[in-house]
Amino acid sequence: MEIWRIDVEKQTLSRELVPDSWMRLGGRALLAQIMVDEVPPTCLPLGPDNKLIFAPGLLVGHMLSSCDRISIGGKSPLTGGIKESNAGGRTGFQLTNLGIKALIIEGKPQGDGSWLIHLSSAGVRFEKAGDLSGLGVYETASRLLNLFGKQVAISLIGPGGEMELRSAGIQNIDKDGVPSRIAARGGLGAVLHSKGAKAIIIDASGGSKPPLVDEKAFRAAQKVYNKALLGHPQTHTYADYGTAAMASMCNAYGGLPTRNFSTGQFEKVDQLSGEHMRQLLLERGGESETTHACMNGCVIRCSNVFGGKDGKAIVSPLEYETIGLMGSNLGIGNLDDIAKLNWEANDLGLDTIELGAALGVAAEAGLMEFGDGKRALELVDEIRAGTLLGNILGNGAEATGRELGIERVPTVKGQAMSAYDPRAIKGTGVTYATSPQGADHTAGLTIRADVDHTDPKGQAELSRDAQIKMAGYDTLGACLFSGFGYAVSTSSISDLLNARYGWDVDEEILRELGRVALKLEREFNRGAGFTAADDRIPKWMTEESLSPSNAIFDVPEEDLDSLFNW
Amino acid sequence: MEIWRIDVEKQTLSRELVPDSWMRLGGRALLAQIMVDEVPPTCLPLGPDNKLIFAPGLLVGHMLSSCDRISIGGKSPLTGGIKESNAGGRTGFQLTNLGIKALIIEGKPQGDGSWLIHLSSAGVRFEKAGDLSGLGVYETASRLLNLFGKQVAISLIGPGGEMELRSAGIQNIDKDGVPSRIAARGGLGAVLHSKGAKAIIIDASGGSKPPLVDEKAFRAAQKVYNKALLGHPQTHTYADYGTAAMASMCNAYGGLPTRNFSTGQFEKVDQLSGEHMRQLLLERGGESETTHACMNGCVIRCSNVFGGKDGKAIVSPLEYETIGLMGSNLGIGNLDDIAKLNWEANDLGLDTIELGAALGVAAEAGLMEFGDGKRALELVDEIRAGTLLGNILGNGAEATGRELGIERVPTVKGQAMSAYDPRAIKGTGVTYATSPQGADHTAGLTIRADVDHTDPKGQAELSRDAQIKMAGYDTLGACLFSGFGYAVSTSSISDLLNARYGWDVDEEILRELGRVALKLEREFNRGAGFTAADDRIPKWMTEESLSPSNAIFDVPEEDLDSLFNW
Repeated sequence: MEIWRIDVEKQTLSRELVPDSWMRLGGRALLAQIMVDEVPPTCLPLGPDNKLIFAPGLLVGHMLSSCDRISIGGKSPLTGGIKESNAGGRTGFQLTNLGIKALIIEGKPQGDGSWLIHLSSAGVRFEKAGDLSGLGVYETASRLLNLFGKQVAISLIGPGGEMELRSAGIQNIDKDGVPSRIAARGGLGAVLHSKGAKAIIIDASGGSKPPLVDEKAFRAAQKVYNKALLGHPQTHTYADYGTAAMASMCNAYGGLPTRNFSTGQFEKVDQLSGEHMRQLLLERGGESETTHACMNGCVIRCSNVFGGKDGKAIVSPLEYETIGLMGSNLGIGNLDDIAKLNWEANDLGLDTIELGAALGVAAEAGLMEFGDGKRALELVDEIRAGTLLGNILGNGAEATGRELGIERVPTVKGQAMSAYDPRAIKGTGVTYATSPQGADHTAGLTIRADVDHTDPKGQAELSRDAQIKMAGYDTLGACLFSGFGYAVSTSSISDLLNARYGWDVDEEILRELGRVALKLEREFNRGAGFTAADDRIPKWMTEESLSPSNAIFDVPEEDLDSLFNW
Repeated sequence: MEIWRIDVEKQTLSRELVPDSWMRLGGRALLAQIMVDEVPPTCLPLGPDNKLIFAPGLLVGHMLSSCDRISIGGKSPLTGGIKESNAGGRTGFQLTNLGIKALIIEGKPQGDGSWLIHLSSAGVRFEKAGDLSGLGVYETASRLLNLFGKQVAISLIGPGGEMELRSAGIQNIDKDGVPSRIAARGGLGAVLHSKGAKAIIIDASGGSKPPLVDEKAFRAAQKVYNKALLGHPQTHTYADYGTAAMASMCNAYGGLPTRNFSTGQFEKVDQLSGEHMRQLLLERGGESETTHACMNGCVIRCSNVFGGKDGKAIVSPLEYETIGLMGSNLGIGNLDDIAKLNWEANDLGLDTIELGAALGVAAEAGLMEFGDGKRALELVDEIRAGTLLGNILGNGAEATGRELGIERVPTVKGQAMSAYDPRAIKGTGVTYATSPQGADHTAGLTIRADVDHTDPKGQAELSRDAQIKMAGYDTLGACLFSGFGYAVSTSSISDLLNARYGWDVDEEILRELGRVALKLEREFNRGAGFTAADDRIPKWMTEESLSPSNAIFDVPEEDLDSLFNW
């Protein structure tokens, strides 16, 4: 494996040996190590000193179920701290099949041109993006697949990234050629644009899977893991209902963000539930299937293709987070409206969580009535039109609150919360508060723990454990849901790593990798100026109680401050 | 002397003894002590836990030349850190004459009403602001003087404060009844509005000057000080030319902000100079005088009344900072255009430095041509109209850069730089970088030092000395320019304090008070999350050289980080 380093100013590629200290890292932890080693933490996120890094996880490249994810990151223009955002799709797999352990994009182009960066076994090639500039993600991806072949992987941005909006993500092609797997959070789409690129095309056709030191042992471990994963009941829930299954559960806990995080239950939740979605999908038939896989080899198939009344796909996938932030959080109880908003956000290349939260704040400021899906779409149109209001919404919930004078803004470190109100699901609130990534459920979700989620006691321990494990999974390139399998078959991870790399690690390796990642991320953020004061849930959520549980966020600050003392 | 504490929720006044630990402090240091003692540093600046504090300096109340200033402060909605902004005018004097050592306004009103808070020897009285709401500062002040008597002191906000814009200041009536003495920086006008007030009226008619322990010694010390002040040549420069005298000097040093801090010299500087202004004022005659005093008893008289061609006042005063930020920084080389912009900013109750810097950023984003005064006025009209663009401009340079996608923003800790480019005047750059107040020349101006201002060596020492002394002056209630006198007559301060309070302090007291203030402010900011990473000049100014000196800001970070190790 090699490090590929692209200088976008000189348009050159340097292929380098992997330094010893990077050798045993991958994905999120490798990304953090590169950031600490090479990027000044006080640099401008959109300036020449920031780097955009693509690092496949340690297990990526072998179609191991839900373990081919790509970590993308750099310094976030949204949070001002380190950012790792990971996604499924083809990108991670194809990078490893070109022998790339990490792709580092650095420098700043001289002019304003927009480029396509093409990677293959022949090296790098820069082509002018030409009339692809300004096009939406769906049309761009379709044209790129026609230009470069249906089999390539693509990471690309939409108009939101081209406008360098702080909620712009980087879309990745899924196994079916749809650009739906977004490294959504933290404004990395703006960073890719600051490097002068509209898209990165990865053609691994001349490459091969990364070597396995002990193929037989790897296949054996894979079998055990697959069996554990398939045997877990949750896998089947997701296969049937997708992540939307979470809506009813979160509502029952009183933690479903509703009308800009004003209440924790939504009277129309039944219209948003996974059960209702499945029923709609089955009724509508056509192109729709109830759920599908985002990566080859995945047995969970949590994703879905949401079809309209005519059976034609509106958007794929419609995820729980989007339903929460663009549905209940906006008072919208209609999956068709949400799917349209989702399509627009995807096509613009924006994070639906951040945008949904921003629209919630805008609604509180009077720019729309809660529940008015048509008006919400008009507001999203402002983003596409590049109006000032559009810029602000596209810059996220905090910018929207600041410029419209709203203090009830659901963010930590400048990043919007996901669809779990931290007052009702306090462990996840601890994660929001303390994660170096800013508010983000994927940094350590606690909702499945069998505890009283409104009791402040013990939540820090729960979050710590979840954050360490998730940072570990993100380092492996493993999806959150792969944990269902790994939790049952506890030796699978070390067995797979030992077979892949010839290592001799034990079951503790997941946590070891997670701790390394978190420690490095904290180090970067300290250099960028973050302190304990940034590890806080917004003050208003510590004072305003959430109906119906009447909970406030009351995990003691000492618990937050000692989270990383392990 | 007492502490007056107003609860705006209950509309009550509590008159309290001065705690021992506050007794020997005043002005800026007392304000910092109250903030550290009473305000949680992570509170919302516009929320109920923030407090708005009025603290006259230690020497206030005796018409000592340029020593009757009022420190106003709290947690800044602009910087997120502590803010002390001081002003001349009548406010400090009348508060002390009511026996008030500090006025603390706390809590948050229940409803949306706008109130006038009337203070007198009878206590506090709340009256509805009624149709004064939304009125400009000039009209509001004029009506309030008619309502409450010509002799009262008034602190008030304009529409900018009522919109809670982050560049809104608090205006104070000068000795002639004009609301021109603004505690401009850091958005304190928004804080006053968050406390439900349009204006605070202080009627000291039933009061008396604060006691002098040794009146004879005080008068003797006052004489020595006045003589020293009057004997200083700089006093006469200011008396003749006002602060505008600085324009030519700063231009000669190559440090005059021009076209959003793109160059350090302006080709039309002669049209902006103090000499030119004096000539215009003398030619135009009418109401204009060349300079005048803002407080009774001041012998410096640095202020001016800028009259139009018809001799009628356009604005008073037209200060160097405004000329720099709203003139050369916008490419505008015409004092009449600048005076009109200044009048609008004053009437809206906005900080001309912050607004000028924001307009410079907006010009860089293409919203106006540099040099187009008419268009600049239209942009200011957007603020008055309450449009989204207006909100953003009114939220300052950093908000403008963020929402319009401009990275060349001249701010530190979110606050715009004054009219000294830090690359050419590096000691002042060190002050911008390290002051707990954010970029602010009044926190420690170094331009008068006899050094090579472009040499990075020794600038930290220069800034440290200036910051300590300025924090000391701000604690005394002494104007920056009183230093001309104190520098000559080094025992005047201790003589005055000893005579006023019966203390036994020596010449070191100025620096002792300054160090106390700075230490407390740093403590508050640390709690609010500030670190060394916040003590930096924007990165682009460390890379982009400034013509004609071709200087970058290259004071070593170690020098910045050790500034407060004294």
